[in-house]
Amino acid sequence: MSKYAKRMKTMEEPANIIKGLFSSMNDPDVTSFGGGAIAKECLPVDIVREIVSDIMTVEGRGYEILSYGPVIGAKDLREVVVKELLAPKGVQANADNIIITTGGMEAMSLMCQLFIEPGDVILVESPTFVHSVETFSMFEAKCIAVEMDDDGMVTEDLEEKIIKYNPKIVYVIPTFQNPTGRTLSLERRQKIAELGSKYDVIILEDDPYRDIRYSGNELLPIKAFDKTGHTVLANSFSKIFSPGSRIGYVYANDDIISKMTDAKSASNSHTSLLPQIICAEFFKRGYYPEHHKLLCDIHRERRDAMIESIDKFFPEGTKRTFPDGGLFTWVELPGGINTTELLKESTLNPDVKVSFVAGEGFFTEGNGKGSNCMRLSFGGNPADKIRIGIERLGNLIKSKLMEEL
Amino acid sequence: MSKYAKRMKTMEEPANIIKGLFSSMNDPDVTSFGGGAIAKECLPVDIVREIVSDIMTVEGRGYEILSYGPVIGAKDLREVVVKELLAPKGVQANADNIIITTGGMEAMSLMCQLFIEPGDVILVESPTFVHSVETFSMFEAKCIAVEMDDDGMVTEDLEEKIIKYNPKIVYVIPTFQNPTGRTLSLERRQKIAELGSKYDVIILEDDPYRDIRYSGNELLPIKAFDKTGHTVLANSFSKIFSPGSRIGYVYANDDIISKMTDAKSASNSHTSLLPQIICAEFFKRGYYPEHHKLLCDIHRERRDAMIESIDKFFPEGTKRTFPDGGLFTWVELPGGINTTELLKESTLNPDVKVSFVAGEGFFTEGNGKGSNCMRLSFGGNPADKIRIGIERLGNLIKSKLMEEL
Repeated sequence: MSKYAKRMKTMEEPANIIKGLFSSMNDPDVTSFGGGAIAKECLPVDIVREIVSDIMTVEGRGYEILSYGPVIGAKDLREVVVKELLAPKGVQANADNIIITTGGMEAMSLMCQLFIEPGDVILVESPTFVHSVETFSMFEAKCIAVEMDDDGMVTEDLEEKIIKYNPKIVYVIPTFQNPTGRTLSLERRQKIAELGSKYDVIILEDDPYRDIRYSGNELLPIKAFDKTGHTVLANSFSKIFSPGSRIGYVYANDDIISKMTDAKSASNSHTSLLPQIICAEFFKRGYYPEHHKLLCDIHRERRDAMIESIDKFFPEGTKRTFPDGGLFTWVELPGGINTTELLKESTLNPDVKVSFVAGEGFFTEGNGKGSNCMRLSFGGNPADKIRIGIERLGNLIKSKLMEEL
Repeated sequence: MSKYAKRMKTMEEPANIIKGLFSSMNDPDVTSFGGGAIAKECLPVDIVREIVSDIMTVEGRGYEILSYGPVIGAKDLREVVVKELLAPKGVQANADNIIITTGGMEAMSLMCQLFIEPGDVILVESPTFVHSVETFSMFEAKCIAVEMDDDGMVTEDLEEKIIKYNPKIVYVIPTFQNPTGRTLSLERRQKIAELGSKYDVIILEDDPYRDIRYSGNELLPIKAFDKTGHTVLANSFSKIFSPGSRIGYVYANDDIISKMTDAKSASNSHTSLLPQIICAEFFKRGYYPEHHKLLCDIHRERRDAMIESIDKFFPEGTKRTFPDGGLFTWVELPGGINTTELLKESTLNPDVKVSFVAGEGFFTEGNGKGSNCMRLSFGGNPADKIRIGIERLGNLIKSKLMEEL
């Protein structure tokens, strides 16, 4: 039975990669450097309790929050985005140009609803975030990889591929990129916005990590250089408030927001209202600055522990990125080690019991690219656990290299 | 700029109907019989506050609730669906065959992701829920209307149209249908399940009103007669808990649930966890039976007030349905009155100030069908306001009929 649509077949491969990624993460005996979650110490449990207790007591407010809400999202929260998140970054937006999404991922799904016909090209970074590739594949888009270096997407290669492939969307994660932790330079940000305008291509700027920066200077988003409305800025509250609340937002021009509101209405009517209101109150009550400091302090310590441990315990010839923020570092191993194979052993071997994400899945071009790479997340474990886990993983890698000799 | 996908064009018409529907609903001077919301007196504000206060205090629980959750939905809530909602209706399900959705609407969207290619046929009731038609249109499905009578979808016409159009999905709202308030007979429920199996067609049973019944006897869902896994049961917590929480669920066979989990992952990762856990606790703590009684008592009174007032104040020759539950009655006016025109006057006329939903938008076949019909919701107003509003609306209709003479 069941004549599934073709898209269910095209999305199967990235869907299986994602299921594979997360399969070892629920084993409590394994130290996971796999997930993309923030430190649990940074989840504002007590504040959420206090806010709910207050708002549900205000006459009439509780009824409002449990009733149907606007498709575009709660006005309170859209105003928070404008005043507390965009204005400080030099982006002057209007709350009517913000739509609230069910987590950051829904932005990719809605953008595909708006723009993607089967076979349309989306240019992505090489490597890129596999979960977005899953979404693009569900819409039967063809993902084509653009070269990256330490300054992010290489704009010369991007321009060539825009000309060659006539893409509908260029998908960029500019800040502390997933999976590499790299940050797109300011010059390239400006250039990418200009390429969007010049070639009439949508630039989808997915920027969920930008607010957790531990070193270096803030850079303007690509959207700040957009003069024609071709750049669409997507962001999320998953890293700065709570991932389980599933709240994200998109900032775009009037026409795109209007169309996105239609697509959102037809997808799920609106995002759950209670988490939207709790999140808005969290900012309006002034909790964010102190919370943000805690977020950065905790993750800076974890990043430093991971980078130092890699330098100390991984074999000579290892390359790794130094992320100024976010949750990931990207490691390229020397020798012929295949990280997909290594992962099986590192999770099962009782002397290691460490998981990570193997690199191959992040490359849409296939053909074994990234098979000696891994994404390591420092968000989920305290510094001492990171040191122990990286030492064990480093020892395993060294033993593998010895076997090769 | 902006080369939108074709689906954004095909969905424009139903999207505009929906925007039209809701435009007059926010005017506080207008008594609205338009929306599909339950009485605000039935929103469990105090219970939600208490539950959040408790669960956020339990060691470790708050962190878990604010973290990423499973794509398929919280296990607690899926178990509540199985034990508290399906088992009492004679449906024996496994929690692994339940997926939690972002409101009831997301079920339609995910089902289209799974099954619909552009041009595929979905058979719908005539009339049917316009919001679902918006979703079907976004996926470029062709909606074809199946006749209804007082016992719901006419199964002879359904079988003919299955043979003629080879549809991917048959979309049915069997209980207290939106917009008519009609209930599909038990015999036809069984017949529709059998037709799904016989012709290898998915039956999408959208049943959000079934748990708010004020008179008559409960009927088994279509799914209870499904022997081959062709029926997919979609339901929602919007009517029995809170619409703004955006929580719904789907019960389907293993293969469909597995595919839906992929589509859900690519759409928004998962439904917001906090509302899922609050809702699960609401049932687990035993609040539902008393809450359910309140829901039924309040809405029964409102239904009776509306039906009695229509019979008393609407002109002779008016036809209306008698819904045993749900939120809507469907009215067919005598004479040549066009309800789309009437709506403009009834909202603006200072002696009336009443809104409803004009009938035409619920018919996918177009050509003016239902132009003398209206959907009246009795959920949103207390009985005395219903009586006053219906009297005013009845007087306006009578005056229109007089003008015609």
